[in-house]
Amino acid sequence: MTDHDDRSRLARDAARVLARLRAERPRVHCLTNFVAMQLTANLLLAAGAVPSMTMDAREMPAFVETSRALLVNLGMLDPWREAAIPVAIEAAHGLGRPWVLDPVKVDRAPARRAFARRLLERAPAVLRCNAAEAEMLEPGPGIVTAVTGAADRISGGGRAIELAGGTMLMDRVTAMGCAASALVAACLAVEPDPFLATVSGLLVMKVAGAIAAESAAGPGSFVPLFLDAVHGLDAATLQRRAELA
Amino acid sequence: MTDHDDRSRLARDAARVLARLRAERPRVHCLTNFVAMQLTANLLLAAGAVPSMTMDAREMPAFVETSRALLVNLGMLDPWREAAIPVAIEAAHGLGRPWVLDPVKVDRAPARRAFARRLLERAPAVLRCNAAEAEMLEPGPGIVTAVTGAADRISGGGRAIELAGGTMLMDRVTAMGCAASALVAACLAVEPDPFLATVSGLLVMKVAGAIAAESAAGPGSFVPLFLDAVHGLDAATLQRRAELA
Amino acid sequence: MTDHDDRSRLARDAARVLARLRAERPRVHCLTNFVAMQLTANLLLAAGAVPSMTMDAREMPAFVETSRALLVNLGMLDPWREAAIPVAIEAAHGLGRPWVLDPVKVDRAPARRAFARRLLERAPAVLRCNAAEAEMLEPGPGIVTAVTGAADRISGGGRAIELAGGTMLMDRVTAMGCAASALVAACLAVEPDPFLATVSGLLVMKVAGAIAAESAAGPGSFVPLFLDAVHGLDAATLQRRAELA
Repeated sequence: MTDHDDRSRLARDAARVLARLRAERPRVHCLTNFVAMQLTANLLLAAGAVPSMTMDAREMPAFVETSRALLVNLGMLDPWREAAIPVAIEAAHGLGRPWVLDPVKVDRAPARRAFARRLLERAPAVLRCNAAEAEMLEPGPGIVTAVTGAADRISGGGRAIELAGGTMLMDRVTAMGCAASALVAACLAVEPDPFLATVSGLLVMKVAGAIAAESAAGPGSFVPLFLDAVHGLDAATLQRRAELA
Repeated sequence: MTDHDDRSRLARDAARVLARLRAERPRVHCLTNFVAMQLTANLLLAAGAVPSMTMDAREMPAFVETSRALLVNLGMLDPWREAAIPVAIEAAHGLGRPWVLDPVKVDRAPARRAFARRLLERAPAVLRCNAAEAEMLEPGPGIVTAVTGAADRISGGGRAIELAGGTMLMDRVTAMGCAASALVAACLAVEPDPFLATVSGLLVMKVAGAIAAESAAGPGSFVPLFLDAVHGLDAATLQRRAELA
Repeated sequence: MTDHDDRSRLARDAARVLARLRAERPRVHCLTNFVAMQLTANLLLAAGAVPSMTMDAREMPAFVETSRALLVNLGMLDPWREAAIPVAIEAAHGLGRPWVLDPVKVDRAPARRAFARRLLERAPAVLRCNAAEAEMLEPGPGIVTAVTGAADRISGGGRAIELAGGTMLMDRVTAMGCAASALVAACLAVEPDPFLATVSGLLVMKVAGAIAAESAAGPGSFVPLFLDAVHGLDAATLQRRAELA
């Protein structure tokens, strides 16, 4: 099998993950920051998943139990969410739910960095971050790591791939990375292979972003076009426009 | 009088409530969840009302005093808002301000359900929720209850009506139900009959949603079109497109 | 030099501030309210700046240190942000970072008003508020004061100017004033004269608002058009459409 065949198969498998997401409509519990909440919820809904976002520690077991994946985002970390995170991860472990860690701005905040390192020991399925954040952390070999940017680099379990495409406009909209992490969590809810789930979620971001950028007049009009593109994305388009390397 | 005449009259009365909302521009104090805040505020502004959203218990008396209706939404309930809610309701009672209860996700969270049941004893004018939430609660006969979904069922004081129409796209946008509850509160600010106020608010949602769906390419473009439709809705269109049963 | 020449020069200088903002991409730390966060972050990104919004007191020194200006917005003031604000201002003073005070709704909330008065003694570079809020406060002569509304009045250091233009649609979108204060802070990050920085930020709001209003069908479609207009604004358009008096 050639590399080209591998990449084609990966794009086809990603399209199947998206199809399952839409068919199964899993609930994803998102512990995320205030700036990212609305876009994150709307992205999950556009993709076919269902978000919940409660972040009170007392409610974690009940909400994680009825969800199929968990997102832990450290942006704007406050004592309230900081207390809920370990409870949510404990519940996820007990129930066998996969979870994604998004260690927002650990390159700037020492206390948050130490917290993120402790969380990495609690076996997230996926770590999604940018290059500056990745430099601060040392994920274990069992954790799929996605470093996103102009190109996304995804690696784990002996596999590695790069996703190109997308659009620079995504850098001019707040919380696109945070929302991407939530979409990866949604894919994990329906796909047991964390490498494929991560590729699936990030490929949807890249392709829908590129489609939206074709019609957008700027970062304002980009957002509704992007959500429309996610909602309307079909398997053939996802495969045809995938830029894997 | 025939049922048809009743329904026509109700739609005409709803159009008058919307006109009063725009003329009087009441302030509505909304204790709501973080995901819903921006859409809720923008919906109230588009409809003609003015939102305030402070949720610190210390500020409740001052903010409720200068508002004409109160929304209590339990989504993402945190200790901070939980402490403010009884203070706000007490202030609303003392000032004769009507209030709306939106018991978000009480079907999932036992502690929140118990809290909602206690709040129902504090005489909200309206309970707005979905079917799963409604099953968990037993509103007293004096409370107008609106169970929203593909069709909205509104009942109370011996009256009952169903609103059809709208669009499935509203299910793919976060916090549309939460925002609808706020719009009902805004209608209560200018209309003393809670049944009519509830019909008015939910009818605006349904008709504006249907109008927006005609031009929307997906859930992303739907939101700005929906807010434009609320802002531009005229009495004749509201009456002509009302689907009451 | 005639007044007309003064105004032309001010518009030209404002265009240069916007150009520096885009070239330098300063980080602005925004302590702001939950309703305003998303629009504020997206406005800063559209204009060329980079937002951060963490509001935990423990993280203030690290985040203020890597930022070049600070926004302190009192909307929806909670104990958490209330504790972070003095720490952030202290850090800003120590590092020589300018800061903007937005005293949201001090006309309604007595405790918040007292807090705002104490903050005014900590030498903000700029006070940005509406007329009702301004009446409650007495900024010292060294503080540039911008009272925004149908026309914006900016004064300080013996200078004063009015900005007309914009659009009434901005009153129908939540948090436009809060976002404007953040944009003023972004301009302060690259322009040491607080009067010019304030004129620059508010002029971008007025001109981009007027451009967006030409195509908007209501307050919903206005927002993405406005962000696009900020992103695409060129120096010639800013100068030609400036309405200074």
